[in-house]
Amino acid sequence: MQREELVIVDDIEKQAWQLLEDAIIYYQGRPVGTVAANDRSQFALNYDHCFIRDFAASALLFLIKGRYDIVRNFLEETLKLQPKKQLLDAYTPTQGLIPASFKVVSNNGEEYLEADFGEHAIARVTPVDSCLWWIIILHAYVKATKDLKFALQPEFQQGIALIMELCLATRFDMSPTLLVPDGACMIHRRLGIYGYPLEIQALFYAALRAARQLLICAGDEEIVIGIDKRLPLLQNHIRHHYWIDIQRLNIIYRFKGEEYGHSATNLFNIYVDSIPYADLAIWLPKHGGYLAGNVGPSQLDTRFFSLGNLMAIISSLASEQQSQAIMTLIEEQWQDLVGTMPMKICFPALEKEEYRILTGYDPKNIPWSYHNAGSWPVLLWFLTAAAQKTGRINIAKNALELAQYRLSEDQWPEYYDGVRGMLIGRKARRYQTWTITGFLLAKELMSHPEYLELFSFEKFDVENAGYACNL
Amino acid sequence: MQREELVIVDDIEKQAWQLLEDAIIYYQGRPVGTVAANDRSQFALNYDHCFIRDFAASALLFLIKGRYDIVRNFLEETLKLQPKKQLLDAYTPTQGLIPASFKVVSNNGEEYLEADFGEHAIARVTPVDSCLWWIIILHAYVKATKDLKFALQPEFQQGIALIMELCLATRFDMSPTLLVPDGACMIHRRLGIYGYPLEIQALFYAALRAARQLLICAGDEEIVIGIDKRLPLLQNHIRHHYWIDIQRLNIIYRFKGEEYGHSATNLFNIYVDSIPYADLAIWLPKHGGYLAGNVGPSQLDTRFFSLGNLMAIISSLASEQQSQAIMTLIEEQWQDLVGTMPMKICFPALEKEEYRILTGYDPKNIPWSYHNAGSWPVLLWFLTAAAQKTGRINIAKNALELAQYRLSEDQWPEYYDGVRGMLIGRKARRYQTWTITGFLLAKELMSHPEYLELFSFEKFDVENAGYACNL
Repeated sequence: MQREELVIVDDIEKQAWQLLEDAIIYYQGRPVGTVAANDRSQFALNYDHCFIRDFAASALLFLIKGRYDIVRNFLEETLKLQPKKQLLDAYTPTQGLIPASFKVVSNNGEEYLEADFGEHAIARVTPVDSCLWWIIILHAYVKATKDLKFALQPEFQQGIALIMELCLATRFDMSPTLLVPDGACMIHRRLGIYGYPLEIQALFYAALRAARQLLICAGDEEIVIGIDKRLPLLQNHIRHHYWIDIQRLNIIYRFKGEEYGHSATNLFNIYVDSIPYADLAIWLPKHGGYLAGNVGPSQLDTRFFSLGNLMAIISSLASEQQSQAIMTLIEEQWQDLVGTMPMKICFPALEKEEYRILTGYDPKNIPWSYHNAGSWPVLLWFLTAAAQKTGRINIAKNALELAQYRLSEDQWPEYYDGVRGMLIGRKARRYQTWTITGFLLAKELMSHPEYLELFSFEKFDVENAGYACNL
Repeated sequence: MQREELVIVDDIEKQAWQLLEDAIIYYQGRPVGTVAANDRSQFALNYDHCFIRDFAASALLFLIKGRYDIVRNFLEETLKLQPKKQLLDAYTPTQGLIPASFKVVSNNGEEYLEADFGEHAIARVTPVDSCLWWIIILHAYVKATKDLKFALQPEFQQGIALIMELCLATRFDMSPTLLVPDGACMIHRRLGIYGYPLEIQALFYAALRAARQLLICAGDEEIVIGIDKRLPLLQNHIRHHYWIDIQRLNIIYRFKGEEYGHSATNLFNIYVDSIPYADLAIWLPKHGGYLAGNVGPSQLDTRFFSLGNLMAIISSLASEQQSQAIMTLIEEQWQDLVGTMPMKICFPALEKEEYRILTGYDPKNIPWSYHNAGSWPVLLWFLTAAAQKTGRINIAKNALELAQYRLSEDQWPEYYDGVRGMLIGRKARRYQTWTITGFLLAKELMSHPEYLELFSFEKFDVENAGYACNL
């Protein structure tokens, strides 16, 4: 890079840090989170909320910079918003759930926090990912501060236990994956991701890994046993049934339907006519592969979902070989998955009848826009983390070079549209906090790969996992 | 009816009773259930199993005829198959679940029962409806025999409590309805009924009503409080958000999308372009209406599902006015919903791209076949019960007249195909037990409306519900 360019990049970074500073929410004089977006040209709707999933990147940046107080305050305040009692009721948030977002409300000069568990959101979707992100952030806080005592406080142990109970609770189905309604994660509108979407499973795996360490340090046994039973089952289930590469596609392509009994090889009764096998056979590079978006009865969603695949690498849910193959796929199908703006939230878009039937005609999720194969700069940090974990630094470097000038010029929009990400998102806000933090965190991870330790996990082997407190 | 016709009908009934007798499964010398089908011309697959949902009609007939032993044995043996411990595991049936089916297996002259929780079934679908049917059958047994002591045995109380815990357990979402994977009920293959399908909600409501009575008689308080909290919420949710008639369609038709906050009227963010509003406006009679198949985020499944609608009438989940409107719809859209064989499992069929996308190209569920708008004689008994409950006897009478000669001539097939039900189901077995029992039970309900009391419920009003044991 030329000296002049360096100066520009330096300026962009400075601007980004300042924007992050401006995004901080204060509550009773203490910093507690960051707003979703700071776009003064548009009506706030719920963009003045602090979203738990959005705050994850902010939290990691604050931890990196030693701004521990913000993350500590965030964890304390969101914990207070977690329902502690099950009311055997409905229409009230379930015990253990962490809200999607919160905001500071003033009433007669007194401030309080208002939580949203989806009641205020479009279509009343419950945010399943929030409680998983909460544990991941708590774990990172302890890793960064070495302040284990913070997590050992009884209210925090209770908070973790309630989330684990919710996740490990008895359910109707027998799969190690979590059954959730459509739109229960970053894709929080209907997009045909009901059932067992990869993003939730990858975050679930990471949260189990994080909770395991926090609970072991607290001397818990019962829940750790439950986690140790679930982790290998979940891992094997995802690695086997979600994996798609050319070898696996060949097997799926020749599946017989309608098999009964224990010996069935086509376990989920997938009919090959339901998947785009011919397109996939061309698209899959020889040494590339990825985890499918969803697996259920007669259902194999072959769309590539970035957050789930990258988080599977970061958390070691994917095997080392699979992780390399995912990065190879991103490299070889760069135009489709990265294009001009890193990176696609999913690929390809649902179009025509699929769009109509699976989104319910959602005008915000038209093909190649928003959740339906739009490009999301926040994914830069996941991509960079996965690149560091797999030693494929060039991938992150190339992605960052694409993004850094453009993001600032375009005033940090939430998302980009179009097949290659050339258009600023049709309804995107500017100054979206996680666009800013996604860029900054990617930068930090490039220059300091050791920060990866805050939120990544080495491979898990239940036999040799051990029960020592290593935090 | 002419004397000659009467003799023929009498012969058909005699034949049907004999076939039911032949379908009884014996286990260690005691009758414990009925096989799904007795078609010796085809390989058994799992048609030699006793399915819990299939046995419901058999059970009611045996209770009517005083053959209490079979139902008692069935309840005792299936209860033994219910997992009593939660293993915090996966791939093992969840605590509280009742299997989809069981069969008698012999090993070295020793007989044992083998349960199937979906492991043997196509696509590994977990049967959520089984545990709901089990409670409904137990309740009917106590009503018929007056043998309350049977249900008060500790193992039965535990069985009920485990099912209630499973159904009322903490979940991620905040709706009073039950979230289930696709194909978790009579429609046990993928058919776009993931989420909150009506059939499950109607059976859930009936099971809550049945469990409430059984638990009150046992002096339970805690679970009854939970049930009393859930019942009105579930009832209001279904009556309001699932209801479709011309007035409601007018409201939905003019819905605004993208509403935020508590004041939103389009609670689930339904886009009218996603529903066939023009067809519905023609199809809905002035005084007719029905409960939608499913409601979720940006999702309103406007297909008519018979079992759910009829069970909603029988259990008083639907209001009295709604119940009348459903029967009016069936009467006025007779050709579509009954045609030449009572009656359609759902209407209309998924066709073309909808078929491809929502069934995953299932060759058994092609349009107008099997679950995808095939005609199922077993639904005769639900239709007759609903007709009795609403005083619309002619509907049942006309349906029975259509079915009675044809079923016997066609050797009691499992289902019929085609837009009007003219074709014997493409892959239908003959001598399907619940075809036989559906016909016989409908006959019994026509001549003895008092049998309705075994499985129907009067309207529930939590204020005046009372806590007296009335069984």
